[in-house]
Amino acid sequence: MKIEGVFAPVATPFNDDGSINFEMYSNNLEKLAKTSLAGIVSLGSNGEFAMLSYEEKLELVKATRKELPKDKALIVGTGCETLSDTIRMTNNAAEAGADVALVINPSYYKSDLSDAVLQKHFECVADKSQIPVMLYNIPRNSGINLSSSLVIKLSAHPNIKGVKDSGGNITQISEILASVPESFSVFAGSGGYLFVTTILGGKGGTLAVANVAPDYCTELFEAAKSGSVEKGRKMQLDLMALNNAVTAGFGIGGMKAAMEIAGFRVGIPRLPIQPAPDEIKDKIYKMMDKLQLVGKYRD
Amino acid sequence: MKIEGVFAPVATPFNDDGSINFEMYSNNLEKLAKTSLAGIVSLGSNGEFAMLSYEEKLELVKATRKELPKDKALIVGTGCETLSDTIRMTNNAAEAGADVALVINPSYYKSDLSDAVLQKHFECVADKSQIPVMLYNIPRNSGINLSSSLVIKLSAHPNIKGVKDSGGNITQISEILASVPESFSVFAGSGGYLFVTTILGGKGGTLAVANVAPDYCTELFEAAKSGSVEKGRKMQLDLMALNNAVTAGFGIGGMKAAMEIAGFRVGIPRLPIQPAPDEIKDKIYKMMDKLQLVGKYRD
Amino acid sequence: MKIEGVFAPVATPFNDDGSINFEMYSNNLEKLAKTSLAGIVSLGSNGEFAMLSYEEKLELVKATRKELPKDKALIVGTGCETLSDTIRMTNNAAEAGADVALVINPSYYKSDLSDAVLQKHFECVADKSQIPVMLYNIPRNSGINLSSSLVIKLSAHPNIKGVKDSGGNITQISEILASVPESFSVFAGSGGYLFVTTILGGKGGTLAVANVAPDYCTELFEAAKSGSVEKGRKMQLDLMALNNAVTAGFGIGGMKAAMEIAGFRVGIPRLPIQPAPDEIKDKIYKMMDKLQLVGKYRD
Amino acid sequence: MKIEGVFAPVATPFNDDGSINFEMYSNNLEKLAKTSLAGIVSLGSNGEFAMLSYEEKLELVKATRKELPKDKALIVGTGCETLSDTIRMTNNAAEAGADVALVINPSYYKSDLSDAVLQKHFECVADKSQIPVMLYNIPRNSGINLSSSLVIKLSAHPNIKGVKDSGGNITQISEILASVPESFSVFAGSGGYLFVTTILGGKGGTLAVANVAPDYCTELFEAAKSGSVEKGRKMQLDLMALNNAVTAGFGIGGMKAAMEIAGFRVGIPRLPIQPAPDEIKDKIYKMMDKLQLVGKYRD
Repeated sequence: MKIEGVFAPVATPFNDDGSINFEMYSNNLEKLAKTSLAGIVSLGSNGEFAMLSYEEKLELVKATRKELPKDKALIVGTGCETLSDTIRMTNNAAEAGADVALVINPSYYKSDLSDAVLQKHFECVADKSQIPVMLYNIPRNSGINLSSSLVIKLSAHPNIKGVKDSGGNITQISEILASVPESFSVFAGSGGYLFVTTILGGKGGTLAVANVAPDYCTELFEAAKSGSVEKGRKMQLDLMALNNAVTAGFGIGGMKAAMEIAGFRVGIPRLPIQPAPDEIKDKIYKMMDKLQLVGKYRD
Repeated sequence: MKIEGVFAPVATPFNDDGSINFEMYSNNLEKLAKTSLAGIVSLGSNGEFAMLSYEEKLELVKATRKELPKDKALIVGTGCETLSDTIRMTNNAAEAGADVALVINPSYYKSDLSDAVLQKHFECVADKSQIPVMLYNIPRNSGINLSSSLVIKLSAHPNIKGVKDSGGNITQISEILASVPESFSVFAGSGGYLFVTTILGGKGGTLAVANVAPDYCTELFEAAKSGSVEKGRKMQLDLMALNNAVTAGFGIGGMKAAMEIAGFRVGIPRLPIQPAPDEIKDKIYKMMDKLQLVGKYRD
Repeated sequence: MKIEGVFAPVATPFNDDGSINFEMYSNNLEKLAKTSLAGIVSLGSNGEFAMLSYEEKLELVKATRKELPKDKALIVGTGCETLSDTIRMTNNAAEAGADVALVINPSYYKSDLSDAVLQKHFECVADKSQIPVMLYNIPRNSGINLSSSLVIKLSAHPNIKGVKDSGGNITQISEILASVPESFSVFAGSGGYLFVTTILGGKGGTLAVANVAPDYCTELFEAAKSGSVEKGRKMQLDLMALNNAVTAGFGIGGMKAAMEIAGFRVGIPRLPIQPAPDEIKDKIYKMMDKLQLVGKYRD
Repeated sequence: MKIEGVFAPVATPFNDDGSINFEMYSNNLEKLAKTSLAGIVSLGSNGEFAMLSYEEKLELVKATRKELPKDKALIVGTGCETLSDTIRMTNNAAEAGADVALVINPSYYKSDLSDAVLQKHFECVADKSQIPVMLYNIPRNSGINLSSSLVIKLSAHPNIKGVKDSGGNITQISEILASVPESFSVFAGSGGYLFVTTILGGKGGTLAVANVAPDYCTELFEAAKSGSVEKGRKMQLDLMALNNAVTAGFGIGGMKAAMEIAGFRVGIPRLPIQPAPDEIKDKIYKMMDKLQLVGKYRD
């Protein structure tokens, strides 16, 4: 299977009591499945994976696979702090229907996690995983950057098939693209550099903003892929403000607010994370209005 | 109860298959209980708390309380990414015999975790906790610094009784000590600044190096507390090299190597963390030899 | 005048006694002037501007203008720590023949240099400057990042005509391009992102690697400008290793070694900066051999 | 000569037109000379050394020596980006009456400035300097930290007699104190850790806050030196708020505002640095009032 196209890292809706609202979740998936997206990332950072128990995670993967048509790929975030948990989660996710495992590095014990240790870790996971592994680099949250030289070394493993780079260092992304096999998928981890990553040879992206503007994002991706530079540039630049609002700018609260404005229902974040305050919602509303996204995915 | 004195953040021994070796654990506790330590921290960073399942954590707390004489205090690391998990873990730990909950901040969603959000989080935990709460600031690992103004605000809560500061910014520690109530315990989170923290009014420390040199550390603490400046200074400076080796320098692998050299049995770290290589062990051996710690706690 | 195209931030050659070798300098300029470059940056970071006295700087500007044909533009680095020095240097450079002033932010007193203070500073410089001002953002060296919102605000000033961004944060570059007037020139500050910056609407670049591979860089720029995505991508990816070697990787020493290999004569860096050691030179030689750059610009 | 005691890094007063006001400067020195300070640092960070020309620097050194009684030591900041400028400035300062040269590391070309390069640089300066050299570590401003291992190596040079550490990492300060000769002076570079640095064996400090509270700072230092722990602790903690206000908190503008409130006359900072706004001045006034410093040094 090819890991290609634009994926939405779907939000996990929570009820006011903090429990998962599976009805909202399925409803959102149903809508996203009707868009032009290549697939869904479940248990990504935007899905609040770090806030979920092991059991909740598996339930979500099952619910995702159940709702998702066969032609939509399912990437699942499976990385944990320990090697054994990561392998177990990866294979449980595979059994629950995941096509690809998106594996974040362990990160708590930073002074123990050299490039050499991380290399061994990812190789062991890939050896044991029943499904292809995609590396997940998100230094802003994990505090560790997967260096271009590490990613290039890991790209030689037959079961490591790509990297989702949420670091956004385009020099590093270019160094990786210059040295990995053609079959290795480099994904933009944010809508802020989907266009340029694709122009450089990237195969797609998994983007918070694809939760709010899925068709816009795939159209932008296709423009890049087909070399429609004028169109792609314009779409990319028009997306910048909203893209910032739903990730770095206003966090999970911002993304959930934007999804509600677009017509999804996502409840509140899990505590201690807070919903976006009204002034942020107003800002996001205006950004989305400009791109004609308000209410676009309402029932 | 007063939170005071030197605590060892006891290591969690693992077998080669990755399971916890409770026999080694109890044996180490038995030895540490005979030292002059004020108590034990279970599920601290040095106890590899981030590598343990919920069930393993509770088992460890129970095993710790069982082994520990009543006059030794038990502080347990109970912070999780979510508010509800943190409250549950805190009260489960309390029921299993913890005297104090050491609560690290959530850290993954950094752009969602402002001082205001963290304040609310800690206050909710403290409201619900059956035992006193001690804040745990360890920016090197969590990527978030609990600012002095945040800690000072939280010190007003009747059930927040202290902070363990592993940031090591002595200006920040001093700002806190200048503004918190006398009953609020500021702990050094590393042996590198136990002396000066105590001299400034700190009430103790929980120190990786106390796992290897417990009696040395309490003697140093007492020197500081009683104002024996000459003695305390000398002991502090003599401790610097080893202290660096068992924390920032060589990580969990370094600390476990040092504990083995001192005469404890701690097995290996949980994967992907690696044991210290031989050259590091040799360095640590020499440092410990200087302080007459080699084999000091052997059976 | 339009600020457009690829510029080489020419090196300043030093004799063994530390004095400037103007003969080497003029000779290099003569060669660079025969290439397809749009112009030269004198007193850039790669020109060791921070190591030069005020008098040396002016001599270099005069020597550059003298050697440079009229159809080649001359951008001169004129930023100093104080406002008055910056204005004086800028207008002296203008009188000595500079077409554009490249103005780095002051940076030593970081806690005094908020966005508001920097905005006022740049506006005052632009008000007083006889020539157009280009902002110079190089956080790796200066320790301050000119935020996209600051650059966007400054782009409204009639005499601030562009920014050279050496931060390499492509999200930030995109945010700037999304909001500045069409006449405002955004330049890539490194060869690592010349292609994507241009594809996004950037007008050129000033690149260390253009000192070693000037015609390659302009060809890459033209490919991007004309939308030749396939060609541009390939050239960009092929350039990554060498580009890293002459900037972030091996510093001034690396760049000077590469220039010597290409056939320029640049002497040694000014002390305390050291020439590249032989093993680095060997690495760079191999990278340049691959791109057929060895000896390409020899007399 | 011994490098010992508390030094004030005297401010450089500027007129509204940006020129130095030597009358104010001499007047301030006259007052400071009557305090219990061990001496003066001229051309320190707080003296806005980075904003001054070579000629202005020398004039200031001469003015300082002229005003200062023989029993007060004069330390002069002489570090420049190049080796040759640093040596020249150091010996010119020596000829103008400096007792000790305070040498900051070069910092612009960070990727060229490894520990090995910096070691060679400082050794060359010390070889050529007519007066003892004191290392100056201020990572917050320079962006480079002089590591404890580098400082320890340099302490072996017969003409390198100390370090002023403005990094404030007390672990690093302790590592240095554990390994340098007794004759090597470790100075606190901020009032935030004068007490603990001295308790650990430091020989003094050069402190922004000593410009506003010179006698308070020397009394604090003497308490630490003589082992009066209770008194020293109280004085240190009482100083924290003001100390933060005059350095990290409100920058040069804050320090100059505080000096005016204490009764000195310092004019405004040199542009682009701005004077403190009124609300900051009010805050500082209240802090100083608590310590009975308002108007204390008025004529």
